[in-house]
Amino acid sequence: MDTFKLVRPEHLNHYGYLFGGFLLKWVDEIAWIAASRDHPGCRFVTVAMNSVEFHKGVHQGTVLRFHSHEHSRGRTSVQYAVSAFADDLESGQEEPIFSTCVTFVNLDESGEKMPMPGATGSES
Amino acid sequence: MDTFKLVRPEHLNHYGYLFGGFLLKWVDEIAWIAASRDHPGCRFVTVAMNSVEFHKGVHQGTVLRFHSHEHSRGRTSVQYAVSAFADDLESGQEEPIFSTCVTFVNLDESGEKMPMPGATGSES
Amino acid sequence: MDTFKLVRPEHLNHYGYLFGGFLLKWVDEIAWIAASRDHPGCRFVTVAMNSVEFHKGVHQGTVLRFHSHEHSRGRTSVQYAVSAFADDLESGQEEPIFSTCVTFVNLDESGEKMPMPGATGSES
Amino acid sequence: MDTFKLVRPEHLNHYGYLFGGFLLKWVDEIAWIAASRDHPGCRFVTVAMNSVEFHKGVHQGTVLRFHSHEHSRGRTSVQYAVSAFADDLESGQEEPIFSTCVTFVNLDESGEKMPMPGATGSES
Amino acid sequence: MDTFKLVRPEHLNHYGYLFGGFLLKWVDEIAWIAASRDHPGCRFVTVAMNSVEFHKGVHQGTVLRFHSHEHSRGRTSVQYAVSAFADDLESGQEEPIFSTCVTFVNLDESGEKMPMPGATGSES
Amino acid sequence: MDTFKLVRPEHLNHYGYLFGGFLLKWVDEIAWIAASRDHPGCRFVTVAMNSVEFHKGVHQGTVLRFHSHEHSRGRTSVQYAVSAFADDLESGQEEPIFSTCVTFVNLDESGEKMPMPGATGSES
Repeated sequence: MDTFKLVRPEHLNHYGYLFGGFLLKWVDEIAWIAASRDHPGCRFVTVAMNSVEFHKGVHQGTVLRFHSHEHSRGRTSVQYAVSAFADDLESGQEEPIFSTCVTFVNLDESGEKMPMPGATGSES
Repeated sequence: MDTFKLVRPEHLNHYGYLFGGFLLKWVDEIAWIAASRDHPGCRFVTVAMNSVEFHKGVHQGTVLRFHSHEHSRGRTSVQYAVSAFADDLESGQEEPIFSTCVTFVNLDESGEKMPMPGATGSES
Repeated sequence: MDTFKLVRPEHLNHYGYLFGGFLLKWVDEIAWIAASRDHPGCRFVTVAMNSVEFHKGVHQGTVLRFHSHEHSRGRTSVQYAVSAFADDLESGQEEPIFSTCVTFVNLDESGEKMPMPGATGSES
Repeated sequence: MDTFKLVRPEHLNHYGYLFGGFLLKWVDEIAWIAASRDHPGCRFVTVAMNSVEFHKGVHQGTVLRFHSHEHSRGRTSVQYAVSAFADDLESGQEEPIFSTCVTFVNLDESGEKMPMPGATGSES
Repeated sequence: MDTFKLVRPEHLNHYGYLFGGFLLKWVDEIAWIAASRDHPGCRFVTVAMNSVEFHKGVHQGTVLRFHSHEHSRGRTSVQYAVSAFADDLESGQEEPIFSTCVTFVNLDESGEKMPMPGATGSES
Repeated sequence: MDTFKLVRPEHLNHYGYLFGGFLLKWVDEIAWIAASRDHPGCRFVTVAMNSVEFHKGVHQGTVLRFHSHEHSRGRTSVQYAVSAFADDLESGQEEPIFSTCVTFVNLDESGEKMPMPGATGSES
């Protein structure tokens, strides 16, 4: 699944760069959307995010493309990989910004871990 | 281009439905992103949006998919069609919410209308 | 009914102009307030907005005045006209930005269309 | 000058009441808009707000009306009174919530106090 | 209790200064947090804020430190003093911005005033 | 350095839990404030965050305390540890939520890495 965000003034620190914290907030939400669309009926809650490294500053007016896909699956959890790319609207060139993995656990209505539909294994 | 939004509590009116105004704000931004990615180097400003009709209420926790594509092109402007679909995360079924067209004009640095790259005609 | 908004940095695109999408979000909310004040006890939901054209860019620090009034009334719906004006705080001069109409339907608690108080006709 | 705000979920504390801090933020902005419209060409900055008392809780879905007018004027400053009223959308009845005064000083481009246009006295 | 806020672009007016209204919103929330942590089990609602005076403009990128502590206590209410300081990140020097007092009343679940735990007096 | 956040409705997903992405956004900002206060004159940009694990859901109305301190220092970078604790306002008990490390690099005005004041080593 691909989705897009426009970096606007409210997302910048006072040096004019995108706050890293916004990237992490977006990655969490986007991975959640991808997982929830792929697994109808599951109730996912974020339990972990891998370490991240930001190699380039991102400026106002940049369009970010986020690509996310299922990376692995446990008995009660799924892990989604998300990669972010910055699109230079002048040249149309795109370059990678960072990537990470987000882990979600599937909960029932009382908040207890629940096996994923079709899960047969014993790992979490 | 497809992109996604999650309807969260801050987007609701006090009856628990998505505010129509948020949909329109998102459509404008999404169409702008699609147009700017398709036409590198252009500086687009929104000049018009077609009439819209909302046939169904949208609840919290819905994932919206927005599909946008170029609909027509003038000498200094482009028109993008945007359609919104609501995804029921329980069943995985999607249904159409509304669609409209947004018109952008291409401006130069002084704010004057500028022909689109490759434009040869005389219409605006 | 007149109401006012101040255009602040968080409402701008990266060229320094007000995002058209914010105008549409504000128009929807303002028309809803006007309709709800005029018709106590009604539960209005937006069902349509007429097409809009933005003829002038709006800069940061502009005060916008929105004038809204009832334009027409059906059996279960009302239509409110909203006009937006930009106030130049240097000169005190105001100029029109755009105008449109928003249509609301009156719902009962179960979400079904309900006649407006005093409605006797048969049109929706 | 009258202006209106709709109390939405994002403005509530977790008991379901409007945060007092939002009221104060709105009062500051609204008084600033009123002062700036009445005195074209002035650059106002807030320097003081009188004490406030909130006698009633405000719930989600309330429409607030803010009435503001010039209360007094010094050589380089103006004071605006703002009163807030809550509109019960069921009954159409309005009741007062609180009122206060906001003081603005007029600054020149270098940030120094500047006499108001037409000011002849010597008080600040 | 000390807590910190970073002044970001979304908090500025169009002259580049922090809106006074944001300061007041933050003060209300911070005093509420301090009071609620000091008095577990109480349900506090803001009923008053003392007058405030802002003697200095605050710029983007400033770190604000807010110090709050209990100032006085009645039978059903507490008053918290809050002082704000601006930290110059270039020099590491801090200077006072303003201070005020916020009064909270303790409510029971039905919204009626309730004595503070351990209160024996008769004043409100 | 300790600082505090109140979890409000706008921070929740539609199951009523705090979005993990907000926690990450806050951690980034809070670590940045701590680093910038400790090292006056430095211009820090986030380059990395360690992996995180969320072991407990956080509900609306929770007060979060974030404790941050310098964890290690390189020639052009610093690493800050941040731990988050949830305060149960009913009982006054606090419990740990998660902790992580954020790495900042010190940039000069042209955006190039710059040694930290007093740095003599050769590691980055």
